[in-house]
Amino acid sequence: MEITRPTLLLNKEIALRNIENMVRKAENLHLNFRPHFKTHQSAEIGEWFRHAGVNCITVSSLTMANYFAEFGWDDITIAFSVNIPEIPEINELAGRIKLNVLIENREGLAALQEQITWHTGVFVKIDTGYNRTGIEFNRVTLIDELLETIQKSPLLEFKGFLSHTGHTYQSNSTHDIFNRHFDALLKLKALKARYQNDWPEIIISLGDTPSCSLCEKFDGVDEIRPGNFVFYDLMQFKLGVCKLTDIAVRMVCPVVAVHPSRNEVVIYGGAVHFSKDSIVNIDGKPLFGRIIIADGDKKILLDEKNYLHALSQEHGILKIAPRDLSYFKPGDLIEIIPVHSCLTANLMKEYLTTEDEIIKMMPFY
Amino acid sequence: MEITRPTLLLNKEIALRNIENMVRKAENLHLNFRPHFKTHQSAEIGEWFRHAGVNCITVSSLTMANYFAEFGWDDITIAFSVNIPEIPEINELAGRIKLNVLIENREGLAALQEQITWHTGVFVKIDTGYNRTGIEFNRVTLIDELLETIQKSPLLEFKGFLSHTGHTYQSNSTHDIFNRHFDALLKLKALKARYQNDWPEIIISLGDTPSCSLCEKFDGVDEIRPGNFVFYDLMQFKLGVCKLTDIAVRMVCPVVAVHPSRNEVVIYGGAVHFSKDSIVNIDGKPLFGRIIIADGDKKILLDEKNYLHALSQEHGILKIAPRDLSYFKPGDLIEIIPVHSCLTANLMKEYLTTEDEIIKMMPFY
Repeated sequence: MEITRPTLLLNKEIALRNIENMVRKAENLHLNFRPHFKTHQSAEIGEWFRHAGVNCITVSSLTMANYFAEFGWDDITIAFSVNIPEIPEINELAGRIKLNVLIENREGLAALQEQITWHTGVFVKIDTGYNRTGIEFNRVTLIDELLETIQKSPLLEFKGFLSHTGHTYQSNSTHDIFNRHFDALLKLKALKARYQNDWPEIIISLGDTPSCSLCEKFDGVDEIRPGNFVFYDLMQFKLGVCKLTDIAVRMVCPVVAVHPSRNEVVIYGGAVHFSKDSIVNIDGKPLFGRIIIADGDKKILLDEKNYLHALSQEHGILKIAPRDLSYFKPGDLIEIIPVHSCLTANLMKEYLTTEDEIIKMMPFY
Repeated sequence: MEITRPTLLLNKEIALRNIENMVRKAENLHLNFRPHFKTHQSAEIGEWFRHAGVNCITVSSLTMANYFAEFGWDDITIAFSVNIPEIPEINELAGRIKLNVLIENREGLAALQEQITWHTGVFVKIDTGYNRTGIEFNRVTLIDELLETIQKSPLLEFKGFLSHTGHTYQSNSTHDIFNRHFDALLKLKALKARYQNDWPEIIISLGDTPSCSLCEKFDGVDEIRPGNFVFYDLMQFKLGVCKLTDIAVRMVCPVVAVHPSRNEVVIYGGAVHFSKDSIVNIDGKPLFGRIIIADGDKKILLDEKNYLHALSQEHGILKIAPRDLSYFKPGDLIEIIPVHSCLTANLMKEYLTTEDEIIKMMPFY
């Protein structure tokens, strides 16, 4: 396909390798693999996971659970604390598939208990230090009370404890990632030890892409749920989690103008294509993407003095080192490695694979 | 309609009033009004403009031009410097409607001249100080050369000079906005004076929402193209451009969890709903939205000690003053005034009006 506007290019070979690696790692470590599908949001890419042996998944919303259920996924965890107004719709889905939901407070559980009409698995969401959501692991009086309530509910089945060690993303070194991961392991192991006698089937579920990619120890863990690893991105690269050659997505953008007077190049590709997530560049400024140009048949990744440094609705502004300006002229197509592949994919709504195939995502978030 | 998940609520009455006010202002100032439709991206809201007397529009991409052309808009300016790879598709549209495109360099014009097959209007994009894109107003040798080339092209018609005073968005006071606007006027008037003899029909087109909302002087200007004013948002409010009661959109989000230990509330509503655009709050931290809660029948806008302060993919984290925490409990619906209505609308893809009507946007960017 001829590319004429911002297009999300997906290297199928790399994505398949990323999937294969994580499947193998989970197998080797005897962990159930329940990948998070919020990164790719695509039924077709879901099939790549299925072919690799995956049969249960994680999603981040009921909308997404409904979408994947339509495509034959029948064992789904919605890794988002139960949204009370949606319980009637949760019932509709729970009647059709094996569904797990999350609770983290009395109110959510009480609403579930009152309104649920089908057998539903329940994970208790534990905060292992990310401090976004979940119950602090040491609030065992509250946890005891919640489990007692679950036990009394014939339609609710306690599955275990689920955590997202999202603070690995704020790490300054891979050492930090290991430390945060081990800290989470300790906390979850303590919980497992406390409740395993009463609930011998208890599942400990965790797994962000940084720790699942880097760490080899998962003592006490039963299930991992990474999502971003299927594509990786510049944020993961900056964290030391992947190599640049592991990143499966690139944005292809047309060059619109070259402004040598301020060492800038304007591309067609803005906030509605990339999202406004950024990382900090070596010059201390926000970086929205790194640049790959074509030099004849060769692709060259430019160094960090060249980067996507500003985004408005459809315009992207590249800062370009004077010596590299000659690589750019209006009408050229360049490639940008995105900072956060999940948010970029969510905006683009479709992929063009390196095999020239269009892959659609769920049309609506 | 019962709201169960993040929903973009549109107050139709306010939007109609915003449209009406800008239509009247353009009339009073004898300016052609060519509103930018990239903010609402909706055929139905387009009809509200048509009923107010609007018959020509601005869009930011060929995709958007094609969408609105389908709904009967036949006089469209694509306010984005010509994207060379799309010229064959520009031809398809130019054959059906009155289309204007932008050029800002020799390459873009040469490609147009070579490939264009239908009569097309051409604006020269002028940079009046925003420094994003366009030709600096004083590079008259380049401008002379471009106009000469246009004159030789039987299918290209020179329409005039177009500018976007986007640096009004970086203003620290309304005084700054006036200054930047007047500076742009001076530059464009100088250009008009220089070229009006040879091109008596020359059009000067400008107009961002801040200057079109605040300023009353548009000497030398023939056409304005604001877009955001239809909804306004927190960024415009912070700039002093609108009142809070002029903002026509709000996100309705369910409360998922309350964490008194860190004065935080978790909502269902994240980066995939709001976008990650932010302004700086009074505490120096990024603010992604301000909060309105319901107290019985009354709606209360909480002060700036309460705000949407972090976003991950689907989660939003509110910072809440201890005294106000009691307003929140899981399952409640709260309203958030978004920072940047264009990017929020672009993500949400539909509106729920205060008259309980669903309004769709263009499905694809």
